[in-house]
Amino acid sequence: MPSRLVPPPTTAYPAAVRPREDREQADRIALSAATARGSLLPTEEVRAWLAERRRANVFQVERVPFARLDEWRFERGTGNLGHSSGRFFTVEGMHVVERDGPHGDGPRREWRQPVIRQPEVGILGILAKEFDGVLHFLMQAKMEPGTPNLLQLSPTVQATRSNYTRAHRGTDVKLIEPFFRPDRDRVIVDALQSEQGSWFFHKSNRNMVVETRGEIPPLDDFCWLTLGQIAELLHVDDLINMNARTVLSCLPRPDRTPGALLSDTQLLSWFTGERSRHDVRAERVPLSSVRGWRQGAETIEHEDGRYFRIAAVSVRAGNREVVSWTQPLLEPVGVGIAAFLLREIGGVRHVLVHARAEGGCLDTVELAPTVQCTPGNYAHLPPEERPRFLDAVLGVPASRVRYQAVHSEEGGRFLNARNRYLVVEAVGADAALDPPPGYAWATPAQLGALTRHGHYLNVEARTLLACLNAMATRPREGARHDAGV
Amino acid sequence: MPSRLVPPPTTAYPAAVRPREDREQADRIALSAATARGSLLPTEEVRAWLAERRRANVFQVERVPFARLDEWRFERGTGNLGHSSGRFFTVEGMHVVERDGPHGDGPRREWRQPVIRQPEVGILGILAKEFDGVLHFLMQAKMEPGTPNLLQLSPTVQATRSNYTRAHRGTDVKLIEPFFRPDRDRVIVDALQSEQGSWFFHKSNRNMVVETRGEIPPLDDFCWLTLGQIAELLHVDDLINMNARTVLSCLPRPDRTPGALLSDTQLLSWFTGERSRHDVRAERVPLSSVRGWRQGAETIEHEDGRYFRIAAVSVRAGNREVVSWTQPLLEPVGVGIAAFLLREIGGVRHVLVHARAEGGCLDTVELAPTVQCTPGNYAHLPPEERPRFLDAVLGVPASRVRYQAVHSEEGGRFLNARNRYLVVEAVGADAALDPPPGYAWATPAQLGALTRHGHYLNVEARTLLACLNAMATRPREGARHDAGV
Repeated sequence: MPSRLVPPPTTAYPAAVRPREDREQADRIALSAATARGSLLPTEEVRAWLAERRRANVFQVERVPFARLDEWRFERGTGNLGHSSGRFFTVEGMHVVERDGPHGDGPRREWRQPVIRQPEVGILGILAKEFDGVLHFLMQAKMEPGTPNLLQLSPTVQATRSNYTRAHRGTDVKLIEPFFRPDRDRVIVDALQSEQGSWFFHKSNRNMVVETRGEIPPLDDFCWLTLGQIAELLHVDDLINMNARTVLSCLPRPDRTPGALLSDTQLLSWFTGERSRHDVRAERVPLSSVRGWRQGAETIEHEDGRYFRIAAVSVRAGNREVVSWTQPLLEPVGVGIAAFLLREIGGVRHVLVHARAEGGCLDTVELAPTVQCTPGNYAHLPPEERPRFLDAVLGVPASRVRYQAVHSEEGGRFLNARNRYLVVEAVGADAALDPPPGYAWATPAQLGALTRHGHYLNVEARTLLACLNAMATRPREGARHDAGV
Repeated sequence: MPSRLVPPPTTAYPAAVRPREDREQADRIALSAATARGSLLPTEEVRAWLAERRRANVFQVERVPFARLDEWRFERGTGNLGHSSGRFFTVEGMHVVERDGPHGDGPRREWRQPVIRQPEVGILGILAKEFDGVLHFLMQAKMEPGTPNLLQLSPTVQATRSNYTRAHRGTDVKLIEPFFRPDRDRVIVDALQSEQGSWFFHKSNRNMVVETRGEIPPLDDFCWLTLGQIAELLHVDDLINMNARTVLSCLPRPDRTPGALLSDTQLLSWFTGERSRHDVRAERVPLSSVRGWRQGAETIEHEDGRYFRIAAVSVRAGNREVVSWTQPLLEPVGVGIAAFLLREIGGVRHVLVHARAEGGCLDTVELAPTVQCTPGNYAHLPPEERPRFLDAVLGVPASRVRYQAVHSEEGGRFLNARNRYLVVEAVGADAALDPPPGYAWATPAQLGALTRHGHYLNVEARTLLACLNAMATRPREGARHDAGV
């Protein structure tokens, strides 16, 4: 039974070895990042093109009560919400017991919450191709029902396993072939990466960038952009979608700095210590066993109105062929904050990463932004229980805000899930070289190297890494705020 | 609440950056590996010293019926076997559903089995120190009730969290301090690594090597050895215990080869594809729900006598202070095989790794030996269902056996668990450069680089990596077989 992921036996491998690292590839990525003017669509026309794509397509999203969901139902007994085919995803309960402290035997926290379970691994793939000697990346103007403006730039392909094995009754996923059977000599990025550990149970997707040398016919909803162009667009609110940001964060880039505060061995050792001192045990439980949440006709929500709601929508979308469906979505309460504190050490930029435990993480902790929270969820708590460093990133002078934009999270599962992403210069005690337990200074190059592997950077940290890489295109500008498209 | 794993605030960090990779350290490891004669205990005296330690200590292990276990009991309802303190480990049930095939939607396999659950992360730590300019490693003559000869060379420290938080009523774990609060500038290895995925549910331990420049007083049960000496001893049956082998496999070594058949990006991409095409869902279930296994007064065993048994032992051990306890152990049926096929490509040694799904693995598949099985468990199956490549590693001419020894697995949880570890030269179709799906050629240096991270090499592959590194000390000798100590 030959796998489709392995080339057929007729492929002849070269019988000699090649270097383990392809340094030329990182240089080609750097060249694309330094190329602000693309060979095809000019950056200043991207928004107009997106607006045009929006007009050319039908997009209708309407909230509906659960009773109007087609083929989705609450399972008798467990109360879990799922599709009658058993595919796509389910909304279930999660029971988390977490202890940190010196050796995972410290104070205990325990809670139950609804969670999205989607055990299938999907593909998030960006096709790359050289035009005029510079790599361009094929971005899709993609409708997702949960994003506030419905249409954002996505990877070339974002396909769940249900998509690509054709469980959907809609149109086939375009351009999936190069990711299905990737040509080994053309793979630039290929790693499994986690997604929101507070909302998903053990979710991961395959992040891929594959180069093509073949002709790709022009397609209405697609455009080729350099990394320099995408970096410019990453300063605009709600334009580059989450899946594109995470794939972009994984691109290999040359490290031209002399090093880092901690060597790679030291950084990994610190992280191993963090994993060891956290004891996180999360298990799926019936949704009906989740106390403190109220199930109504239109939402499942927290009794105190915190965290998020489960809602349902009806969707009509398409251009020539219009498809329609209904589905549940998870709707967070309020706009979140995801921020890195930044400082230079020995002339090299470092950010303060946080080893953060989330119930839906596969392996205890991942590396998160310095601050990652929805401030409103902490309003009821005394000041000493508010997230650490929150005051260091909110209400600071504009001159210390090195990057700022509001981005949407995955619009196929989340409704109006938006985070304000910030990179803020650290001052005073917040810039101390010996940060508190659970925090460490790392360079963007070190974080980039870790994206070759899964289970390190969480999805919010990956968005911020993409933003850090994009910052170079607008150095030291202070705070700015785009109105969005 | 300051963590003990982070240096106190008085520690001044250097305010400048250091190189991300410490190449000098890999060279010091290589020097120790090339040093066959240690500065302290000569290699040829190690066995006599072990025999002397065996005489100086009391070691009594006796099988007992479950009814004679102290403080261990089968929980009402679930039938799970656990300690009354809630610590150490439990024997529970595991339910596995596995699908591979093109996209995890292929043929389905499903089974239930007993499994050991020990969610705590323990420390396996080897202390290193320079003598005469060469790194030596502090090995312990350690009693473990499940190993056939009871006493083997172990890491300096092997401590469960129950040990180091002093749940055990016995003596404190010696020399734990350098691993508890490691000096950042002295850490050589620090990674979480998985253990047997067929017998443990999501087990991992912290593998550490820490250098000391302080004086370590001589201790009866400890000896300092170079890596060259340890390599020589790795050719002896049942001498270097599993925990020592896994820690040794993680030591950074310089890669002096020109490269590999697959670049690191290509190897990782292949592995990501393997993870994506396997769908493995394992969940804990009550031991009483595991069908096909028979619970008697002395064992829990498979109805057809395959796989393993759960047994119980009573132990007395110690020298000045003798401690005694009872505990369950998992006893495999028969000696297993773990073998790498090996070939040179472009003058560089490669081994054929297998992306292997095991129910107790945290994340679908890990990299395993080419062959890993207990042949007797397959005797009832037709030839086409026997493990692939089994015939390529068994019954081959001695001239093609490049390494061979029988090693014991963890003697604190397993009883008489032994594997024949082999490295066999591949010939003919087995040496093809395009192996079947699920297999890839990788160099020992590539596998070594992956041991910086968890979830890649399984514990049997890590033992074989330690053996591959040790092979250099006895090149091309053909098959040999030591009688053990």
